[in-house]
Amino acid sequence: MQYTVVFQPAGCRGLVSAGENLLQASRNLGVAIEAPCGGGEICGKCKVIIDSAMSNLSPLSEKERKVLTPAELAGNYRLACCARIYGDVVVFVPEQSRGANQIVLETGRHVALELKPAINLYYVELNKPTLEDFRDDFARLKDALLSRFIQIDKNITIDYRVLLRLPDVLRQSGWKVTVAVWNDTEIIAVAPGSESKAYGIAVDVGTTTIAAYLCDLVTGDVLTQDSMMNNQVRYGDDVISRISYCMMNDDGLSLLQQSVIDDINTLVKRMTGSAGIQPDHVFEIILVFNTVMHHIALKINPQYIGSVPFTSAIRESVTVKAREIGITIAPGGYIHCLPIEAGFVGADNVAVLIAEEPYKQDKMTLIIDIGTNGEINFGNRAGILSASCATGPAFEGAQIKFGMRAAVGAIERVKVDPVTKEPEIKVIGQNTSDHEEIILAKGICGSGIIDAVAELFKAGIIQADGGFNKSIKSPRIRQGPDGKFEYVLVWAAQTTIGQDITITQKDVRAVQLAKAALYAGAKILMQKQGINKVDSVILAGAFGSYIDKENALVLGMFPDCNLEHVVAVGNAAGSGAKLALLNKDKRIEAQVVAQSVQFVETAAETNFQTEFFNAMYLPHAKDSFTHIQHILDKIPQC
Amino acid sequence: MQYTVVFQPAGCRGLVSAGENLLQASRNLGVAIEAPCGGGEICGKCKVIIDSAMSNLSPLSEKERKVLTPAELAGNYRLACCARIYGDVVVFVPEQSRGANQIVLETGRHVALELKPAINLYYVELNKPTLEDFRDDFARLKDALLSRFIQIDKNITIDYRVLLRLPDVLRQSGWKVTVAVWNDTEIIAVAPGSESKAYGIAVDVGTTTIAAYLCDLVTGDVLTQDSMMNNQVRYGDDVISRISYCMMNDDGLSLLQQSVIDDINTLVKRMTGSAGIQPDHVFEIILVFNTVMHHIALKINPQYIGSVPFTSAIRESVTVKAREIGITIAPGGYIHCLPIEAGFVGADNVAVLIAEEPYKQDKMTLIIDIGTNGEINFGNRAGILSASCATGPAFEGAQIKFGMRAAVGAIERVKVDPVTKEPEIKVIGQNTSDHEEIILAKGICGSGIIDAVAELFKAGIIQADGGFNKSIKSPRIRQGPDGKFEYVLVWAAQTTIGQDITITQKDVRAVQLAKAALYAGAKILMQKQGINKVDSVILAGAFGSYIDKENALVLGMFPDCNLEHVVAVGNAAGSGAKLALLNKDKRIEAQVVAQSVQFVETAAETNFQTEFFNAMYLPHAKDSFTHIQHILDKIPQC
Repeated sequence: MQYTVVFQPAGCRGLVSAGENLLQASRNLGVAIEAPCGGGEICGKCKVIIDSAMSNLSPLSEKERKVLTPAELAGNYRLACCARIYGDVVVFVPEQSRGANQIVLETGRHVALELKPAINLYYVELNKPTLEDFRDDFARLKDALLSRFIQIDKNITIDYRVLLRLPDVLRQSGWKVTVAVWNDTEIIAVAPGSESKAYGIAVDVGTTTIAAYLCDLVTGDVLTQDSMMNNQVRYGDDVISRISYCMMNDDGLSLLQQSVIDDINTLVKRMTGSAGIQPDHVFEIILVFNTVMHHIALKINPQYIGSVPFTSAIRESVTVKAREIGITIAPGGYIHCLPIEAGFVGADNVAVLIAEEPYKQDKMTLIIDIGTNGEINFGNRAGILSASCATGPAFEGAQIKFGMRAAVGAIERVKVDPVTKEPEIKVIGQNTSDHEEIILAKGICGSGIIDAVAELFKAGIIQADGGFNKSIKSPRIRQGPDGKFEYVLVWAAQTTIGQDITITQKDVRAVQLAKAALYAGAKILMQKQGINKVDSVILAGAFGSYIDKENALVLGMFPDCNLEHVVAVGNAAGSGAKLALLNKDKRIEAQVVAQSVQFVETAAETNFQTEFFNAMYLPHAKDSFTHIQHILDKIPQC
Repeated sequence: MQYTVVFQPAGCRGLVSAGENLLQASRNLGVAIEAPCGGGEICGKCKVIIDSAMSNLSPLSEKERKVLTPAELAGNYRLACCARIYGDVVVFVPEQSRGANQIVLETGRHVALELKPAINLYYVELNKPTLEDFRDDFARLKDALLSRFIQIDKNITIDYRVLLRLPDVLRQSGWKVTVAVWNDTEIIAVAPGSESKAYGIAVDVGTTTIAAYLCDLVTGDVLTQDSMMNNQVRYGDDVISRISYCMMNDDGLSLLQQSVIDDINTLVKRMTGSAGIQPDHVFEIILVFNTVMHHIALKINPQYIGSVPFTSAIRESVTVKAREIGITIAPGGYIHCLPIEAGFVGADNVAVLIAEEPYKQDKMTLIIDIGTNGEINFGNRAGILSASCATGPAFEGAQIKFGMRAAVGAIERVKVDPVTKEPEIKVIGQNTSDHEEIILAKGICGSGIIDAVAELFKAGIIQADGGFNKSIKSPRIRQGPDGKFEYVLVWAAQTTIGQDITITQKDVRAVQLAKAALYAGAKILMQKQGINKVDSVILAGAFGSYIDKENALVLGMFPDCNLEHVVAVGNAAGSGAKLALLNKDKRIEAQVVAQSVQFVETAAETNFQTEFFNAMYLPHAKDSFTHIQHILDKIPQC
């Protein structure tokens, strides 16, 4: 015997078998009712209100009499896990019982939002076709979806590849299937029986590193994350050299595209393998990247982004079947690329913005995302300006004599005694509490470089103009092979490379250029906003999490700010991609942001040269730094 | 210098260069103005009304003064080909000057309708990007389309493959391109410069024969047509054997699909080659077929159509990128399969209906489409019923002892002298006016079989129950190797096969079965409609054009009807496909028709056996045939 049950206010209705409880019925109909105990008649959270004759349900159980208040009993409340169905019934699910899954992301700030993925699963049981009911398979499935789930678009379509399998899947499953629907408008998978496996992947395709996050679209959980080197580095370290490669080689674009597609497929395989799930259950990938990585991944000629006026082929979000670009997930699955801004400022910056939401705040926030390119954003709810800064790769350890990536053996922390001028270093892999093992230094990574230059400045070894103070006598300060001064950070004997690891004058200049680019960019944006101080600074990018905020300010990487309001948020681009994956409203937000953020071509501003020149000084030629003045005051004057 | 010109009532506006005439401007803006002379200032048809200051145009020419009436001159009329633009101007195109391209198809009836293809070409000139106007390429193109053509959807998208080429095409063309837009919602091609090449192909995929029509989507002309054998016949003659092949062989479906895709690609290549056009300029293919051919072409398992309750995977129209199923036309091009009805009654029958439009008429029309399967439709504007009839392949010459396809050497016409019992035949390839060449007979095709059986009946050689009249003495009537009677149509000496070509008792039975299936089906539909006579009969299918209508009625292939109201319309399925290609409204009509036509499973009707039995008689056991009674009266009674 079957009865009709309707859940309000969702409006979902369907047939259920006699004796089934309301909680089971709600799950089959895709209605979320809170039941932390999983329907074990324990938690008492699954309260619902019955709008029909109570005689159509099993009598009140002991458990319900205990949990429900007299007022609730009088108001026809029941526990969904206890009330069994023996007649047609209309159920109202009150606000507090509605299962509103929240996504909470581990990032610099606590981001909590509703789980609202583009892909949802719907379970339906169909009547078998007969000579009287000879509807086609698709119409049968569509009718069932439309009759049970009001959110489904009445013109819902089915992916061609999924259609091919539909007749067999329906019959092999005994006409009970779970349907994956994209944006409630297209069936992108049909699986036999009741199924709750739906996954998505957020990918941040950086010029150097690709980071990916595998998420459960049903629970909102991040199951695993992984990253790898972008194998395009074989064809060039930065976006300009990648563009050149595409221009100089007939098959350059094809090679570069295949490289990044292979990388993404590798990550998909690795992550689904480690999470023990099928790649076929991955229904969507959100991609964020800078504009050049975006174009190459989509196999669009990136040449015109590389020269004035830096025109991209398409800025709005691109949604394309994964199979169209060779990414191996579910056959009907989608790739969604967040929209890009302008020039080199890409979807990754848009992702940072939707993760940090400066446009929802009153305080004037400066967001610095330091990757192989530096992007900065400045503003608040009144408007956001963004710019691209040619920092060069110094902060990633490149173009530094002993620079290296952040890996075992890299010097990540430096202190220099202002009196003895002797350094104290921390090497990645060296567990300070474990005095047994000593990891020898191999080179210096970005955070170490920032520390080193700032510490040399604080110790008076480097002057405000970046030049070495030649009057200081120390065995560590000497002239290098190029005749210029250098500071020996580690003697050869304490290294794995058998050479003295030094900070050269050239290294200092590279850091000055990089930080001046960021600072000048920020200053231009502040001037455009008519604002002369920043309320808070957000350091995005993995790199931002490792640097010493105080030393960064001493260097003058960003304008003066209370250090308590300087936060590192890790890979905010990745967080933004995850948010867009788990809540499709964030994609609309991304479109709005990409359109409304005003891109400033800082290098084209008349005062850029002046600002850049002033920012070359440590911390700055003119601007005051009240929040670190006490440190600057202690610098030995020579 | 450039000026803005607006064409009303279309609302199209755009910038044109000084000195351009209004006709040129209208073409660039996609506004159709009648100009049979091609703008040569000859025909005087391109009259337009100027809503602006006349001073913004060149002065009245001699030609205009001669052609325009004083009233027109006073009413600000001009000839579009003469008036040159020297300022902003608003032009009203009066009804009689609007170029409403009509499609006229060569079919049984005169079909004329507006040219309204799904794909339209739009020419746009874009401003080059600058540092001030750094819109992305797609936004620039989209903005230009939206600003010039009001019909374009504001959320227009671009095909992924077309996007890949966009940056290069825009720059190589100097920012002047022609855009092919599908349904005004998706850009499916971008070509440099001003371009008027847009083609489509209508394909009728029959079980035995594939017929295709190459059409110009700009003019509505049918450029060429071609046909070939469906190479799937290697895997089985009829739909049931094709289904079996798919079921019995693991790669059966793949092989059959590849076969028909190869055939379609062959036709595309052959037709574009003979018309001298690029396959890349073919933007759409309309496909019609029966349900089994439909499923196989789309690579959908056809197994479930083959057995009760004959359920298809999808009935509604299927629109899919040509590249998804391996058809090689423009990279962004589409395949559109018309909707199917039910069971074996497919998109081909829907195409017949939209070509013949019985649902727009008062008279009760019987449409018979005889292919490898027979489909019949009966009704008028009050409602149409359709049915599938298991005619078997007798009408195609199969299962007939000396049966063959309609080709050189096939007997296509037969007359039998009622007195001498001697036959007179016409063989395909034999030019009756050319007495030199005699083509010897090789076999007998469908129209010949119908003639032969009808003539033998009219001569009294065959009786009303189909049996030979054994009392007639003639050297041509004898017992065959199976002991049953047969009639010698051609003596061995007059054949190329060196055997007597005979009509056997078994052949007569096959024809009886086939015609009884049609007749009984028609009777069931008439009974369902509560109608006891048909007002007109339409014979669709190439076969219908060759048969002798009178003999068909003498056989009792269809119920009695005034022979003047029996028309053969040729390949109506192909005509319907062409109409859907050239006017997208016909696709909506097809959806409505496919939904509203009521399919009748005639074999499931209780009185089908009785009707079938009665219809086995020539012309019928019970029904009267007033329109051929004079012929029946002359049959020698033996």
